[in-house]
Amino acid sequence: MSRLERVETGLGEECGVFGAYDIDGHDVASSVYYGLFALQHRGQESCGIAVTDTCGKRKVLFKKDLGLVNEVLDEESLTNLKGNLGVGHVRYSTAGGSRAENAQPLVINYVKGTLAIAHNGNLTNAVELRKELEYTGAIFQTTIDSEVIAYHIARERLKTGKAEDAVKNAMHKIKGAYALVVSSPRKMIGARDPFGLKPLCIGKRDNVYFLASESCAIAAVGGEVIRDVLPGEIVTFTKDGIQSDTTMALKPEKQARCIFEYIYFARMDSVIDGVNVYHSRIVAGKALAESYPVQADLVVGVPDSGLVAAKGYSEYSGIPYGMAFHKNSYVGRTFIKPKQSQRESSVKIKLSVIEEVVRGKRIVMVDDSIVRGTTCANIIKMLKKAGAKEVHVRISSPPFLFPCYFGTDVPSNEQLIAHSHTTEEIREMIGADSLGYMKVEKLKDMVGDLKYCDACFTGNYPMDVPGEDISHAFE
Amino acid sequence: MSRLERVETGLGEECGVFGAYDIDGHDVASSVYYGLFALQHRGQESCGIAVTDTCGKRKVLFKKDLGLVNEVLDEESLTNLKGNLGVGHVRYSTAGGSRAENAQPLVINYVKGTLAIAHNGNLTNAVELRKELEYTGAIFQTTIDSEVIAYHIARERLKTGKAEDAVKNAMHKIKGAYALVVSSPRKMIGARDPFGLKPLCIGKRDNVYFLASESCAIAAVGGEVIRDVLPGEIVTFTKDGIQSDTTMALKPEKQARCIFEYIYFARMDSVIDGVNVYHSRIVAGKALAESYPVQADLVVGVPDSGLVAAKGYSEYSGIPYGMAFHKNSYVGRTFIKPKQSQRESSVKIKLSVIEEVVRGKRIVMVDDSIVRGTTCANIIKMLKKAGAKEVHVRISSPPFLFPCYFGTDVPSNEQLIAHSHTTEEIREMIGADSLGYMKVEKLKDMVGDLKYCDACFTGNYPMDVPGEDISHAFE
Amino acid sequence: MSRLERVETGLGEECGVFGAYDIDGHDVASSVYYGLFALQHRGQESCGIAVTDTCGKRKVLFKKDLGLVNEVLDEESLTNLKGNLGVGHVRYSTAGGSRAENAQPLVINYVKGTLAIAHNGNLTNAVELRKELEYTGAIFQTTIDSEVIAYHIARERLKTGKAEDAVKNAMHKIKGAYALVVSSPRKMIGARDPFGLKPLCIGKRDNVYFLASESCAIAAVGGEVIRDVLPGEIVTFTKDGIQSDTTMALKPEKQARCIFEYIYFARMDSVIDGVNVYHSRIVAGKALAESYPVQADLVVGVPDSGLVAAKGYSEYSGIPYGMAFHKNSYVGRTFIKPKQSQRESSVKIKLSVIEEVVRGKRIVMVDDSIVRGTTCANIIKMLKKAGAKEVHVRISSPPFLFPCYFGTDVPSNEQLIAHSHTTEEIREMIGADSLGYMKVEKLKDMVGDLKYCDACFTGNYPMDVPGEDISHAFE
Amino acid sequence: MSRLERVETGLGEECGVFGAYDIDGHDVASSVYYGLFALQHRGQESCGIAVTDTCGKRKVLFKKDLGLVNEVLDEESLTNLKGNLGVGHVRYSTAGGSRAENAQPLVINYVKGTLAIAHNGNLTNAVELRKELEYTGAIFQTTIDSEVIAYHIARERLKTGKAEDAVKNAMHKIKGAYALVVSSPRKMIGARDPFGLKPLCIGKRDNVYFLASESCAIAAVGGEVIRDVLPGEIVTFTKDGIQSDTTMALKPEKQARCIFEYIYFARMDSVIDGVNVYHSRIVAGKALAESYPVQADLVVGVPDSGLVAAKGYSEYSGIPYGMAFHKNSYVGRTFIKPKQSQRESSVKIKLSVIEEVVRGKRIVMVDDSIVRGTTCANIIKMLKKAGAKEVHVRISSPPFLFPCYFGTDVPSNEQLIAHSHTTEEIREMIGADSLGYMKVEKLKDMVGDLKYCDACFTGNYPMDVPGEDISHAFE
Repeated sequence: MSRLERVETGLGEECGVFGAYDIDGHDVASSVYYGLFALQHRGQESCGIAVTDTCGKRKVLFKKDLGLVNEVLDEESLTNLKGNLGVGHVRYSTAGGSRAENAQPLVINYVKGTLAIAHNGNLTNAVELRKELEYTGAIFQTTIDSEVIAYHIARERLKTGKAEDAVKNAMHKIKGAYALVVSSPRKMIGARDPFGLKPLCIGKRDNVYFLASESCAIAAVGGEVIRDVLPGEIVTFTKDGIQSDTTMALKPEKQARCIFEYIYFARMDSVIDGVNVYHSRIVAGKALAESYPVQADLVVGVPDSGLVAAKGYSEYSGIPYGMAFHKNSYVGRTFIKPKQSQRESSVKIKLSVIEEVVRGKRIVMVDDSIVRGTTCANIIKMLKKAGAKEVHVRISSPPFLFPCYFGTDVPSNEQLIAHSHTTEEIREMIGADSLGYMKVEKLKDMVGDLKYCDACFTGNYPMDVPGEDISHAFE
Repeated sequence: MSRLERVETGLGEECGVFGAYDIDGHDVASSVYYGLFALQHRGQESCGIAVTDTCGKRKVLFKKDLGLVNEVLDEESLTNLKGNLGVGHVRYSTAGGSRAENAQPLVINYVKGTLAIAHNGNLTNAVELRKELEYTGAIFQTTIDSEVIAYHIARERLKTGKAEDAVKNAMHKIKGAYALVVSSPRKMIGARDPFGLKPLCIGKRDNVYFLASESCAIAAVGGEVIRDVLPGEIVTFTKDGIQSDTTMALKPEKQARCIFEYIYFARMDSVIDGVNVYHSRIVAGKALAESYPVQADLVVGVPDSGLVAAKGYSEYSGIPYGMAFHKNSYVGRTFIKPKQSQRESSVKIKLSVIEEVVRGKRIVMVDDSIVRGTTCANIIKMLKKAGAKEVHVRISSPPFLFPCYFGTDVPSNEQLIAHSHTTEEIREMIGADSLGYMKVEKLKDMVGDLKYCDACFTGNYPMDVPGEDISHAFE
Repeated sequence: MSRLERVETGLGEECGVFGAYDIDGHDVASSVYYGLFALQHRGQESCGIAVTDTCGKRKVLFKKDLGLVNEVLDEESLTNLKGNLGVGHVRYSTAGGSRAENAQPLVINYVKGTLAIAHNGNLTNAVELRKELEYTGAIFQTTIDSEVIAYHIARERLKTGKAEDAVKNAMHKIKGAYALVVSSPRKMIGARDPFGLKPLCIGKRDNVYFLASESCAIAAVGGEVIRDVLPGEIVTFTKDGIQSDTTMALKPEKQARCIFEYIYFARMDSVIDGVNVYHSRIVAGKALAESYPVQADLVVGVPDSGLVAAKGYSEYSGIPYGMAFHKNSYVGRTFIKPKQSQRESSVKIKLSVIEEVVRGKRIVMVDDSIVRGTTCANIIKMLKKAGAKEVHVRISSPPFLFPCYFGTDVPSNEQLIAHSHTTEEIREMIGADSLGYMKVEKLKDMVGDLKYCDACFTGNYPMDVPGEDISHAFE
Repeated sequence: MSRLERVETGLGEECGVFGAYDIDGHDVASSVYYGLFALQHRGQESCGIAVTDTCGKRKVLFKKDLGLVNEVLDEESLTNLKGNLGVGHVRYSTAGGSRAENAQPLVINYVKGTLAIAHNGNLTNAVELRKELEYTGAIFQTTIDSEVIAYHIARERLKTGKAEDAVKNAMHKIKGAYALVVSSPRKMIGARDPFGLKPLCIGKRDNVYFLASESCAIAAVGGEVIRDVLPGEIVTFTKDGIQSDTTMALKPEKQARCIFEYIYFARMDSVIDGVNVYHSRIVAGKALAESYPVQADLVVGVPDSGLVAAKGYSEYSGIPYGMAFHKNSYVGRTFIKPKQSQRESSVKIKLSVIEEVVRGKRIVMVDDSIVRGTTCANIIKMLKKAGAKEVHVRISSPPFLFPCYFGTDVPSNEQLIAHSHTTEEIREMIGADSLGYMKVEKLKDMVGDLKYCDACFTGNYPMDVPGEDISHAFE
């Protein structure tokens, strides 16, 4: 399914963070731009870059707004963003509505100068923390919970001599999921929540250090990945190199990476915590083939995210892999959606079936998830109209049954077809000849020894969670 | 001189604030729009409107950005801004650079809900207050000192049961010039600094109450002016009517209204603190005629702000009043300014002389101020080229000699021609046949019994002022 | 009345043309820009500039679009428009709807190269000529009748060796009103219809020649007016200087300049055919004072176009002249107009009354025309509300009774209040205490010996006119 | 290679045309919008839609401009474009520079009403025809040769009673490549040049007829393809159905379809003249496998256009097919391209290699063409850096050696690597382990019995061609 489809149906994406620090003092805005570009799939609502000149006046310059990276930032803004320490962010609104004010990085002035903060993830105790802060006289100008983090860092900074320690102390207060990139006047700091729910990795190119949500962004700027930031680790980059503080780290068996990064969020060319995303999707496809074998002539994936799992299904089952769909690459954000009454459907305009490929064939169609079921039903209808004899649907994730409190915007229960229907009912509703969901117990094969969070499928949350949805609590 | 000329030469303008509260619950965004429109002359850099529905969810909706009122706000935004309590602001950057983040109203969430604050004026102790706040864990996201006011109101609100008392307590801390319009979830609050440096008046139309920097904005929305807010007064509008708190008020003889409102800032159709602006300019013109009589054939004013004083000069002297200039009304913000090398000059494109009127005449030319002298010199050259035999310049304000700490962006000393030259030297430099500045001692005639601040001419500040320019302290 | 008001009420304006030719080969785009700026009052719908490099490849570069001069043209476009021969146009849509395709200059390629044509005026035989051309295989891509002129020039050019002779031969075919500026690859050509309905003058600055609809544009670019182009004259500018062809000229007594240029269209600082516009309006005001004397305390003009005639009224009558109105200079094209139901009215937002000036006074209010009467009625209401005891309205033009076929967009009869009501009825409808229109027989005093067209008041057209309105014939 | 890459390296694309005629009288603008959307890959420079109401006033309304379909057309414009007969166009500038004036459809008024013309292709005798027309008094306002076609249709229409006959007579004059969609006031007319160089097909949905460059556009609007327009055929749609005129048709053996439609231009889900584009690319891949077998572990295609041929290579050779690349789908038109000096390269930002897939493998990499060779070299370098042991390049077209006069914007010889280097030299320059180009004699297998034009590879033009490049003759 295309990401645009996803946005419509409501399975929300995350955010992406990127940092660059050139210890030789050269401008980094352009590297941050290309880094964000490679992370654009993690958030298309707003974006921004903040830079500091660590050698000069340490004034923070920034540009952020609603829009895609290439809409918000142009040649002129990059030229004006002079500084050798930069922080960037792409945002999909998980918490905090769609407003320019909520664009990140958040740039704050406090007693020790200016900080820029880019945050991916959601806090589970944001409501309490915010209320607490308000009772000590805090005011809030956005609806993003990143502002809560900023306050805590600023307040801790008053008590400690180092920015990285302020970050650590703040981490004692905040709970939930976060990958942070912070620029203090002379340092770049990265931090990851103790569970490792959100990814963050370190890269290097000559004398430039990078932090990025995914390794693909390091590659895009011509850098090499050094390693991932550990769950609970704080890494600090100064002109003297990298320092690490792992006192907040949990034992590996307590960690809980978001499994959905591997299933859908991350780019297939990224490697997260040592696990190749492409590989993990191949494994998922193989697991589907093992769990739900079927007599068929062709395995096809729904672009883009179903393609790799389809390849895995094909490899395990021996059924040939094929390209059944053409995806229109010009369907952008401002595309006019057809009205109900029109004969043209959204799916038809985005995807078309290559008849030559599917005619007369028994098809295994692999996709990464089913949200409301309507898109899936339309695609099956298109395949059948093009002459497919059978369409067997395989979904590379288990059914969504529980809310995510960590930043994945799963629609509310009423909209989730799996919430109120059995698999057989869903199969019938979408018009598939058979339907198989990834088994929960097979997820572990995707990520080797890594511990992960699968709470959206199982309800087994790695920490206490609020009783209700807090993602729009401040609006 | 046109305001655009002013912006170029550096005599900065102020801000304008507007509030509307419809106790019957109807939307007020459109009234705020027209009110801001009437105050546009007070600030062309950015503007914004924030509205609350006092009867419903009391959620604050807002739209603000860099640009003129008709650029930032369109039909669609007005329609979306649903609420019966609205606060608006037009801004000229006195303190805080030209950034979208600095646009007002400032909308903050705090323990008691959401406040929107519109502020005209500059604080003299903003640096200390901000530092102090930072030491108690405050973070700042803008460079406007209005954020300091917001913090103090929020913190005081924790200790007191009423929003208006929080405003009052905050006023005990902040020093300087301010006219405030604040919307708390259920109330509209107006406040004016104890010296009354900045104007603020109250209006009404049926069951809608208004607050506005100038009475012209009340007229624009079809309302009647009730009265001015008193220096130091806090007025609170609820569904039960107006309440007033004057415990902060100074004795009339301690008050210090900005005299430059009458000379230049305010619209000539406004009445401020009971004094008609048009009338005060007529008086200024008469004073000039009395102080500097001359044999001449015609009195002309430099559009727009010199016109009324010219009329006064004409009335006192008996020399006929005439229109010597045509001002091009299409010279907007994005006008391409001629380069030095070009034969076309900025002045020539904005103003042209009507030869028929000035040919062979001895002219008295009245303007409100001389900043660098170049514009004045150019206009005199144009008059002489058109055949004027003599040009006698009369300026309706005394020479600028001291910085303003209250929100008027007087250029630094080096740029002020009066700072380093005698009147005779200036006369020669601009090519006038005679030159007379308004005498400081005559200013009082412009405003009757009102006490005013003339510190930019005399250095007699009504309160302690910082030793240095703090208007860009936070950038 | 402001021009914006005018646009709403429907008394349409004209177009403006400008040409510049630098025989030394320097770029002229910037001069054309400032020239158009000075002519912006003649048309705010669209504008454009076309330039040729007469010394180089003689390729025509152009930029044109809907919008004001400072909206359509920016620094970058001016820099790209390289060429020493330039033609510019500002347009108000008299004939041809509001479409980007109709923006001028019209740039055409034909057998002898490329022509750019800027045209002010309307042809009376455009429909026949267009039909005729179509029958010989012509195709039309705009709805402006300037395309008809272009065709005729192109076709005549095939038969003659000189571009200026092609223009002359085309002039034998086209009938109606026109002022033309044409750039052929090596020449700038200006032409004016034999009646002289539309103005055109010649200016010079060093080695740069100018053509402009009004002298104010010559002044804006630092040039000197040489003379007006004669009715029926063709002037050709080459590197060898100016050549004139007056074989098409009519005898002075047959000429028929548009009187409305003096009453309203032209800028008051322009001189057209030797007659100072400011002066002619003073004369009009005096004539009104002579025809309609009244006991009053103050004469005021409705900004901007009523101001000068008010001055004339004051001078003749001896009643003091005053400024009764403040006009908001920020009311631009995108201003949101108040809805009927709103308490704010369009007039109130644009104009406000200075109470101090009018309170208790008997007022003579001078404006240049009454179209539907509603605006006038509103202004009178505002004056009375401000305390005016009496309001005597004097209009500096006779009532509109007949359509104009030459480019003035007089509304259709049903909308014209004068068409169906007597002066006394109108007086009552607008709430004036007395009302006097300029007498037709006095118009001649405004322009000395010049012959003029007053057909919109009298029906005495200087040539045969179509039986019906053809201004939108091609849409 | 992505199309964006293509645009940079200079292998130009074509145009796309679409027509819709609803005989029941319903609006078709929205169908034309979605049709153009499906054809966006054929041209990204400008686009437009023109509609007529055949039952009403037969006035043509249109909107066209530089930009993508979803940039130029929004909900409001579609709503305003009322009419049941619509013509649309997407344009890549083959002839005529990048100017708004050159956007299509071309809308012309002529003696019989208004025509809208959308044209894909280039004329070979445009220069002569234009000169000829100019000598009979024609003027040209664009630099596209479609204007020449319009003139000829308009002139022929004077001599004949039917619009379709005028089209036919015009076709006797114009030479070269064209697919035309024309709307005359009451008819939709489609025509294709006698060689069939450009594709055009007919579709239907209930009572709506469609014409489209490719069948994928018919599918996008929910229609069924009826058949292709024959080379040389004119089809006319009226309320009485379709009429066909094949008097201009050439014998099948003289036809010459552009082979590059199958290799690259067309969407893989289209069927052109009965040949499935997907299938023809599979055939091309198989032919490459047959011609250039190699020992390898994996076959990969360069997205998007190399993917299908790679599949074919895999099928024939038995070497597994894999996905080696991730293509960033957010790289749009306004993407800031990295400067030479930057470490980030354009290719790296658009494409990334999935290491997991290629590490340690011997790779066959299939792409559709090599223009300058730099992109190909960069991709090979990325593959090798990711651990590929060998990279064998297979190109699914023969080397470009001759200019195309029919609308494909092949770069000039100096830029074409194949023009001055042997295959072995190119192999070395791009760093491939082996290199094989599609053999010219195998092209016929791609299209079955169809006759095609392969002049860009062989120089065998199907008709006389000009001696020089005329694609920018009129600028």
